[in-house]
Amino acid sequence: GAGADNDLYINQAIVFIEDAIQYRSINHRVDSKSLWLYRWYYSRTCQWILSLTITVILALAFIEEPSSLTVTSDVRYRLPAWNPPCGLTESIELLCFLVFVIDVSVKSYLIGWKEFWKNKWLIAYILTLIVSLVDWIVSLSFFCKENVRIRRILRPFFLLQNSSMMKKTLKSINSTLPEMASVVLLLAVHLSLFTMFAMLLFARTKDNQQDKEWVVYFRNLPDSLTSLLVLLTTANNPDVMIPAYSKNRAYSIFFILFTVLGNLFLMNLLTAIIYNQFRGYLLKSVQSSLFRRRLGIRAAFEVLSSLKETPASAQQSCVSVGALLQVLQKVEMDSRCKQAIMRSLKMCSCDQLSAAQFQKLFEELDKDAVKQHPPSPEYQSHFMQKMQFAFGHPYFGYLGNVVALANIISICVVLVMDADKQLSERDDFFLGAINCFFILYYLLEMFLKILAMGLKRYLSYPSNRFDGLLTVILLILEIATFAVYGFPHPGWRPEFMGLLSLWDMVRLVNMLIVFRFLRIIPNMKFMALVVTTLLDLVKNLRAFAGILLVVFYAFAITGIMLFKGAVQTCFVFNFLIQTPFSIKKVVVLYFKGKKVISWCSAHFQAEVIYCFLYVLSVHLIYRWAKIYFVAWWLLSSVIWINLFVALLLENFIHKWDRRCQRESLSDIEYQRTVELMFRDVLEEPTEDELMEKLHQHPHLQLCR
Amino acid sequence: GAGADNDLYINQAIVFIEDAIQYRSINHRVDSKSLWLYRWYYSRTCQWILSLTITVILALAFIEEPSSLTVTSDVRYRLPAWNPPCGLTESIELLCFLVFVIDVSVKSYLIGWKEFWKNKWLIAYILTLIVSLVDWIVSLSFFCKENVRIRRILRPFFLLQNSSMMKKTLKSINSTLPEMASVVLLLAVHLSLFTMFAMLLFARTKDNQQDKEWVVYFRNLPDSLTSLLVLLTTANNPDVMIPAYSKNRAYSIFFILFTVLGNLFLMNLLTAIIYNQFRGYLLKSVQSSLFRRRLGIRAAFEVLSSLKETPASAQQSCVSVGALLQVLQKVEMDSRCKQAIMRSLKMCSCDQLSAAQFQKLFEELDKDAVKQHPPSPEYQSHFMQKMQFAFGHPYFGYLGNVVALANIISICVVLVMDADKQLSERDDFFLGAINCFFILYYLLEMFLKILAMGLKRYLSYPSNRFDGLLTVILLILEIATFAVYGFPHPGWRPEFMGLLSLWDMVRLVNMLIVFRFLRIIPNMKFMALVVTTLLDLVKNLRAFAGILLVVFYAFAITGIMLFKGAVQTCFVFNFLIQTPFSIKKVVVLYFKGKKVISWCSAHFQAEVIYCFLYVLSVHLIYRWAKIYFVAWWLLSSVIWINLFVALLLENFIHKWDRRCQRESLSDIEYQRTVELMFRDVLEEPTEDELMEKLHQHPHLQLCR
Repeated sequence: GAGADNDLYINQAIVFIEDAIQYRSINHRVDSKSLWLYRWYYSRTCQWILSLTITVILALAFIEEPSSLTVTSDVRYRLPAWNPPCGLTESIELLCFLVFVIDVSVKSYLIGWKEFWKNKWLIAYILTLIVSLVDWIVSLSFFCKENVRIRRILRPFFLLQNSSMMKKTLKSINSTLPEMASVVLLLAVHLSLFTMFAMLLFARTKDNQQDKEWVVYFRNLPDSLTSLLVLLTTANNPDVMIPAYSKNRAYSIFFILFTVLGNLFLMNLLTAIIYNQFRGYLLKSVQSSLFRRRLGIRAAFEVLSSLKETPASAQQSCVSVGALLQVLQKVEMDSRCKQAIMRSLKMCSCDQLSAAQFQKLFEELDKDAVKQHPPSPEYQSHFMQKMQFAFGHPYFGYLGNVVALANIISICVVLVMDADKQLSERDDFFLGAINCFFILYYLLEMFLKILAMGLKRYLSYPSNRFDGLLTVILLILEIATFAVYGFPHPGWRPEFMGLLSLWDMVRLVNMLIVFRFLRIIPNMKFMALVVTTLLDLVKNLRAFAGILLVVFYAFAITGIMLFKGAVQTCFVFNFLIQTPFSIKKVVVLYFKGKKVISWCSAHFQAEVIYCFLYVLSVHLIYRWAKIYFVAWWLLSSVIWINLFVALLLENFIHKWDRRCQRESLSDIEYQRTVELMFRDVLEEPTEDELMEKLHQHPHLQLCR
Repeated sequence: GAGADNDLYINQAIVFIEDAIQYRSINHRVDSKSLWLYRWYYSRTCQWILSLTITVILALAFIEEPSSLTVTSDVRYRLPAWNPPCGLTESIELLCFLVFVIDVSVKSYLIGWKEFWKNKWLIAYILTLIVSLVDWIVSLSFFCKENVRIRRILRPFFLLQNSSMMKKTLKSINSTLPEMASVVLLLAVHLSLFTMFAMLLFARTKDNQQDKEWVVYFRNLPDSLTSLLVLLTTANNPDVMIPAYSKNRAYSIFFILFTVLGNLFLMNLLTAIIYNQFRGYLLKSVQSSLFRRRLGIRAAFEVLSSLKETPASAQQSCVSVGALLQVLQKVEMDSRCKQAIMRSLKMCSCDQLSAAQFQKLFEELDKDAVKQHPPSPEYQSHFMQKMQFAFGHPYFGYLGNVVALANIISICVVLVMDADKQLSERDDFFLGAINCFFILYYLLEMFLKILAMGLKRYLSYPSNRFDGLLTVILLILEIATFAVYGFPHPGWRPEFMGLLSLWDMVRLVNMLIVFRFLRIIPNMKFMALVVTTLLDLVKNLRAFAGILLVVFYAFAITGIMLFKGAVQTCFVFNFLIQTPFSIKKVVVLYFKGKKVISWCSAHFQAEVIYCFLYVLSVHLIYRWAKIYFVAWWLLSSVIWINLFVALLLENFIHKWDRRCQRESLSDIEYQRTVELMFRDVLEEPTEDELMEKLHQHPHLQLCR
């Protein structure tokens, strides 16, 4: 009947608006039952359970058999890691798989059979689940003693498929691959041509004294390739050319040419290419999000305009305010936005809304909450007003910064003076007294500020919250110290008492004071710019970090499987984490493997990198160890670092341009959303584009 | 009289047009005698003498006393370097100074007294010369035994002041300094805050076993600062955190935070800032060159329009064609351009030229020579026409590439097979025979191409010239080999004969073949793009390279003076060259100085870097050695490399955009000038701007 139809339309409108809010695609089933399922699936609880499941299955690696996660990494002291009995992790895994099976079925059902076959991610999801389950069965039938566990390498896929941001980023990286491949090919050509040159140049001669270069670095093709590949990371930079150079200085031309072309030019070309490809990336992704939002709103408008109560005679389709109010009450959204929309709906005198008015109402969603600081209290007394003026003035804040700086400097001076003193000679009186004085000042500053601004206004500034919290913690620590050790006096150096020694307490207080000094950041324009860029970057980098995590996990599990028995899990993890930051050291040790062996067997303890490399060098006979190593270097050091630089350039240059434009605004605005950053360059989708997309909807049949 | 006036105007026009061609400023004296002096000063001979003088005075460092330039760098074998007697280099220097004195006097006279005081470069030039001459007199009065020679450090200034490009670039770098300084300050704040944290975190404890971290890395303030500064270069990356990490894994958070913030974020921020500052740099510099050119042409027009023969009644000022022809005949310029301008002048039917027509005539200067390849010969015979079609077809070129690749692969195979053979076991027959065959093919290819294209057309392509030259050299080498060693036969391994052994000959041939393989570059679009970007970059980088050379020279001379006696000149040079490419190794060795000492005293030979570092570590007690080191690291590794990356990004992205725009043009055009690259974005200066600038000319009095 008409009532049931109306209910359906209302429900559809609710879901479409929620889709718009969450930037979701609207291409899903729209019958009543599916809509219920859809809202249930995207409810906070369900999504939370799904995220938890993904976290759990990924975290299993930390307690599964070859894990060695302990507090200390020193093998002499640490206890053997706890090995779960066979069946424990497997049953957790089975539970996770069940959740995933439900997830994939609901998802497939909701997008419909036809769309399912077009969606490669869903098919891959199902295949991954099947392979994992088969592997799980094999594992159990061997009583967990099997060697290869494919399902572990497949695990990060579950993380990947659950994030639309990561899928989008992956697509974007994918489109950069041809150019990256070109540069990598160029590098390979560069490397091979120079290898041939080197082999011809540094050939064996009759004089054994003269062909040192040949013996050490260019004995055969793999050696030569390796020498030059390592030279590309500059790890063996002066060493590799020294024997030839000492024969004739002119040989250095070969190495300089190779380094300049390969390292300075081709490697940086990769940065240029990746940056060039990602220049529009952020804008494009924000643009497509905007399109999804507008589409969802428009779809809601279209279904609401089909409601029976609407006068059919109207030439333009329109929506009654009543229906919209009904929908709004049921939509789950930010309460501030909802109130703002309700308010403007009530202010609007008309009874019917056109499509443009409807869109305009929901533009509230794009706006950031305008931070309104509560007003300062108004004092009657003249004295209090003067106080308020004095302590509400920015100069009072600057004075606080100067005092904090003085505190830092005093701590620094004491540290320098005490540096070489024995513990028994040390006297904590001076530092204790000074800190006591400074903390009193901080407390006073806080109270005066609260007096001037009122508590609410004081707390509405993040810098004040940071400040106040640290001051309170410092106060508590000071009181605890005095309670246990008494007031500072010369020779204030009592023995260990309570939870922490006095020295530890003082150190903790000092660390907090240094940390508190960071409050100066918003006062320095350039620093504030850098910090906001950093925060933006972290936000935009989440998807990249996720993909890195996926690749890292797969590599780590592969490494653990490859070097099984000989090496502990943590070694592999450490190795993978260290590579991008200390590639040279890793490379140097890797290729001096044989020397490391003896060193390792003597010092086998905390120096995880070296000992992992010892294992690697044992495995050097296998080609795949080398391939594994080079692949990880390419991915982590070369490609990921360049991606990071490209994103940083993109973010920073955009910010910088904006800063120059709005130099007039005196205080720095923290841009909370990427959408806002691009607002002035975004293009609104046209009505035709929206309607065309709506008519392509696989499940929604629009009347007109 | 009027005739003398007319002569003066003609001469002025000639000089202004020459200024326009060379992008020079027109703000110089314009009376007859000064014009003669000006043309003499900017004549090719004078400028060549000046450049030679600068080269000579800079090159003196290679033969002056602490120099150690010899063929081998191995101190066991090399002969002591030749020490010139006192007075030899000094008299060369005096000659150079005399040339500079003449240079500075002429320059000062030409720009006029008033302008001289505004020109800081000229004043600095004169001061440098005075200081150098005083130092020279002191040097001679000590009979060359004095310790400090300031004039050596000042030498690169002569290079700097002679290049307007370098002065412009320096100005541009100068304007980037505030932002760079901000980041460096940020780095300093980052470093000092983390140093304080580290000193508080890794303090001395009672248990000697537990405070290993403190003992090795954070004993006092200088130690802590150094440890973290080195961590910023990632040179001591895993080492520095190992003792703390082995106590508790959580300590690694401190180091990871430091590295991520400092190394990944702040260092790359420097790249972003420098790139952002240099984004418009190329465009701006090309734009100002364009303005100078237009201004010179306009000035020539204005003086020519004041000629007495011009009808004064004309409302608009104009120039007679005859006068212009007279000027053109005396102007020194590219003959192709001159002819083109003459031709269009003759084609123009009018007798008088307006300002716009005058400018338009000289636009020929902005155009690049359109490379017209001579036509192929036209054969009568049907057979020859078919031959011409077959061997003039691109596929024949591709076949040549395939054959070259086959040759490379065959050489590679032989190299791999022969890798471990003793010299006595080696048989050069196979390689000799194969190369003989391939070289015959190359010869045939060359002849067939000449046949199809005609010699002139063949030589008009650079790739053919490269190809042909190498083929001819290969042929000569082959013939020489056969003449000395006979034709290849099994066991073709005769003893040393003539200038080179057979083995050396074969190696040389192979190297040339590998080199010849580079002819494939223009056939691969992406490679061609990369190579043209590289060439452009080299062109645009000249000014930067010059400034780097200036800084390098000053640092090297300072280093030689600081570490005098203990260390040879070449050590300093090597150290400075190596720093940007192997900073980590240099740093590691520098800070392990004490260990290197014993190693060095045992192996004191070719390993120059290590032994320079030995000397450095001896000097470690002096603070300036550390400051010298850190300053060079900042300049060379951090700032210069980032400048390079910024320029590369700028060049590449511009190229890439253009490539995408003109994808339709099938063959890649080599852009010869930077001006052409930007032609579509350059703005023409307006008439008002030009006239305003002309009226500001300090010496030229325009009639109207």
